[in-house]
Amino acid sequence: MAPSETLTAERILEATEEVLRRHGPAKATVVDVARALGVSHGSVYRHFRTKAALREAVTKRWLDRTSQELAGIVAEQERDPEQRLRAWLRALFDAKRRKAGHDPELFATYMVLTRESGEAVPEHIADLTSQLTDIVRAGLDAGTFTATDPAVTARAVFQATGRFHDPCYADEWEAPGVEAEYEAVVDLVVRGLRGA
Amino acid sequence: MAPSETLTAERILEATEEVLRRHGPAKATVVDVARALGVSHGSVYRHFRTKAALREAVTKRWLDRTSQELAGIVAEQERDPEQRLRAWLRALFDAKRRKAGHDPELFATYMVLTRESGEAVPEHIADLTSQLTDIVRAGLDAGTFTATDPAVTARAVFQATGRFHDPCYADEWEAPGVEAEYEAVVDLVVRGLRGA
Repeated sequence: MAPSETLTAERILEATEEVLRRHGPAKATVVDVARALGVSHGSVYRHFRTKAALREAVTKRWLDRTSQELAGIVAEQERDPEQRLRAWLRALFDAKRRKAGHDPELFATYMVLTRESGEAVPEHIADLTSQLTDIVRAGLDAGTFTATDPAVTARAVFQATGRFHDPCYADEWEAPGVEAEYEAVVDLVVRGLRGA
Repeated sequence: MAPSETLTAERILEATEEVLRRHGPAKATVVDVARALGVSHGSVYRHFRTKAALREAVTKRWLDRTSQELAGIVAEQERDPEQRLRAWLRALFDAKRRKAGHDPELFATYMVLTRESGEAVPEHIADLTSQLTDIVRAGLDAGTFTATDPAVTARAVFQATGRFHDPCYADEWEAPGVEAEYEAVVDLVVRGLRGA
């Protein structure tokens, strides 16, 4: 690290991702991260008190990139809720598929990290379903959706579309026919939201 | 094996499941199966030409138990299609949860076998979605469901409810709240089938 640059948490997390990419999750150490930054490992520990905390933070940062990308769609108040929901589900599927497809080794690394992480994944899912709840609530306000409890319905929408965002299906995301399957599930879910 | 008993494929498969239960998928061999039956391994090979064929057949048998259990619900012509659909999804969830929960070691063994199997899982999924297609078609005939293509819609229903039958979610099936989640997803899907 050039001495003039301040060692921020963000710079450590960037370096950690790079070290994970290079060494894989089993071998990457805090010493590797410190070496990549040209600092002592003590400097890294001043920002993240344990290796586990550093790994959790880098996982959270990776997951947050997706939620931040989607938050913009929730905020598009001028679009009707059904269009916003379709755009949101599409953006989620595209983001996850891109992560899995463009850099499969880093994706596999993060799959290891998410399994060992205590809070990062439940927090990520809570973020996403909370975004979905806002869209469902907007649809109720507009009178285009039917639901007794927006949060419960949002979680059902999230779970019903899991095939197109849950990493356990990553191997299917480039299969022929997956787009038609995606459309059929989203149409079914949207019709369910319109309700009777 | 008592000499008076005929060595049938079914008896070999029963013994194979028992050997798998005892030795696990990595160690179970055709010789173990033959020994359990008191026959030569040549006798086993006369029914199943390779170890892979035997493993595929025992996997198929395990999966078929579930589809056979569900086939009865599809045939209950006197129940209205929505009730049949709800009963079918419930029976599928219960059957998978029972398999995962009552004998976790055998379930883990079959998870290994299904991953190495070429055709057993796709055939099982095709069986189940074909049963669902019959129910969706019955709902169209009765005028209670809306769908342009019953097979496409049936696959969407199957995929939208995957959280409650796909083994990749087995760890969640005993979690608190899973019943409420199940109900919310099934209600959403059923409302989607009633359509607009």
